[in-house]
Amino acid sequence: MSEAATPWSTDSARRGTEWLTSQGAEPDVVISSRVRLARNIRQFPFLIKCSDAQREQLLTLVRSGIAQAQLSAHVLWVDVHRLSAIERMLLVERHLISKEHAKGETPRGLAVSIPDERFSVMVNEEDHLRLQVIRSGLALTDAFRQVDEADDRLEGHLDYAYSSRFGYLTACPTNVGTASRMSVMLHLPALRLLGEIDKVTRATKDMGLALRGFYGEGSEVAGDLYQVSNQVTLGKPESIFLHELEHEIIPKVVQYERLARIALLEKRRRYTEDACARALGILRTARLLTPDEAMSLLSLVRLGVLSGLIEGLNEQTVTQLWVQVQQAHLQRVADCEMDQQKRRERRADVVRERLK
Amino acid sequence: MSEAATPWSTDSARRGTEWLTSQGAEPDVVISSRVRLARNIRQFPFLIKCSDAQREQLLTLVRSGIAQAQLSAHVLWVDVHRLSAIERMLLVERHLISKEHAKGETPRGLAVSIPDERFSVMVNEEDHLRLQVIRSGLALTDAFRQVDEADDRLEGHLDYAYSSRFGYLTACPTNVGTASRMSVMLHLPALRLLGEIDKVTRATKDMGLALRGFYGEGSEVAGDLYQVSNQVTLGKPESIFLHELEHEIIPKVVQYERLARIALLEKRRRYTEDACARALGILRTARLLTPDEAMSLLSLVRLGVLSGLIEGLNEQTVTQLWVQVQQAHLQRVADCEMDQQKRRERRADVVRERLK
Repeated sequence: MSEAATPWSTDSARRGTEWLTSQGAEPDVVISSRVRLARNIRQFPFLIKCSDAQREQLLTLVRSGIAQAQLSAHVLWVDVHRLSAIERMLLVERHLISKEHAKGETPRGLAVSIPDERFSVMVNEEDHLRLQVIRSGLALTDAFRQVDEADDRLEGHLDYAYSSRFGYLTACPTNVGTASRMSVMLHLPALRLLGEIDKVTRATKDMGLALRGFYGEGSEVAGDLYQVSNQVTLGKPESIFLHELEHEIIPKVVQYERLARIALLEKRRRYTEDACARALGILRTARLLTPDEAMSLLSLVRLGVLSGLIEGLNEQTVTQLWVQVQQAHLQRVADCEMDQQKRRERRADVVRERLK
Repeated sequence: MSEAATPWSTDSARRGTEWLTSQGAEPDVVISSRVRLARNIRQFPFLIKCSDAQREQLLTLVRSGIAQAQLSAHVLWVDVHRLSAIERMLLVERHLISKEHAKGETPRGLAVSIPDERFSVMVNEEDHLRLQVIRSGLALTDAFRQVDEADDRLEGHLDYAYSSRFGYLTACPTNVGTASRMSVMLHLPALRLLGEIDKVTRATKDMGLALRGFYGEGSEVAGDLYQVSNQVTLGKPESIFLHELEHEIIPKVVQYERLARIALLEKRRRYTEDACARALGILRTARLLTPDEAMSLLSLVRLGVLSGLIEGLNEQTVTQLWVQVQQAHLQRVADCEMDQQKRRERRADVVRERLK
């Protein structure tokens, strides 16, 4: 396992993330699929009760376990608490760590498979371990299989806290049980344009699912991107829930969004052409862009490209920009810190250059 | 004097108007100057008291007077009450007749010098005659001289109602006296962007001037275009008022707007570049445009061209579009009637084509 004090150099920040490559199943609507498992080590108290010394011990123990388990050809280890603010934010923007994990100064780590970044482990987040697999498109079963396999291997080297009555024990009771969270990132511009997002919100809520923004819990919806995830982890086997989500619920939403796209083209074609063409027009000319505006306009351009209303533009170029316009990526690629005004200028410059 | 039942064919509607050619003095800020005189014929009551028969007699009398006076090489006569709604609106959009003149079905006419459209007479509007000269740039003295000369000639053929005590008698008491209205159309995008339009509004009000929108009394401001005109016509000789307006008041506003443009370029350059470039970006890509949005965006593009922020675009092309995007012009050029939705489509198509 290699180590890097400052991972994600200018070059790799410039590189896209694999989960934004629009590969896999239903890539027009399903951006990515993610499965996270929460695990804790039996010999240690939950993190809220851990001293700094115990947190250090945990880091060493888990890091060594990950190294022994040989989870991937190349796994990079990162001492998150030693990173600069921009480097941490960069990891958040690439969906490798949570905002909470980025914040603290107590010992905390990240292990991540490189260069694909598919598999990662946050160490000392809310739980001792949070294992994650993230994939492009609708690939929950694949993602689950991969994270499950990694979990099995790790269990050979680490002593997990497990109760035969409750299942895996977790810091937050809502995660107890299978302790897995599955989520799917959906791109729903047509439903929003038709004013039908509320129906999706209500339907997912009725099914016990959470609907969140691009950056997870508590984040605003941006770029018409919605994360659907399970709320309940107790009482239902993963396999059943996984099947429901991947083969029943998500396909319904996908179908719903596709019908909305067809309706836009058939019944409101001018309106849709106008929205998509203007979005590209603004992105190609603006000299100042906020992140929210950039994401919203990119959403419309993506819709335009996928609907055949915009030609001569690569869909991946557009999709990757969702992450590339985030502030840490902008600063890492430019290799300097910028205030909000400078970031807005830089964001507009980067977008103009990419969409030329 | 020639006659046309349907003047302003497709071709001439496509042609720009002379007062939008940005010629004359201070053309960067002063779009046009206009002087209107109100005159009534002694033998007839004011129009509000006129029967249709009397209105017809007035038309014949005035038309004949205009023909005899030989006011211009080519004067076209139009029976406004025989025109279609679109043809009337076209005349309003070219600032040749007022909205009120366009509305009624009682006998009413227009005489206009062609092809320059500089000089015109509305017959049977609020007064029996409303003589108008409109010029590009700041040219009030010229416009006044021209309308005064035409008025003198006409007076040789028509018997004006004049009182040695009150001056020219007019239907509305606020016009009595010199019975002249002078107005200047200003383009003030920089003052608006800096939030300083209120200062102009207050200053002009303090000086007894009215500040109005692009289409005169009661019209909304659009495209950052403001009409400054005199409120009072009684008690002050025209020559003094004319001098004040042309050599003191308007030059101050012009200077104020120019300083604002410099301030934008020096202190808020990115912001200004962004506003102007986006405006052009939207106009070049939109598939739907309302008249207000089109006018506002054209205003920013004009500012961009004049400030050197936008290159490769002719300023006149942009300025002429202010009239070309109006609904009657769109329909006349397309030679068909259109509902609001179709007009928005057509407007966007015309603008895209022109600004390519």
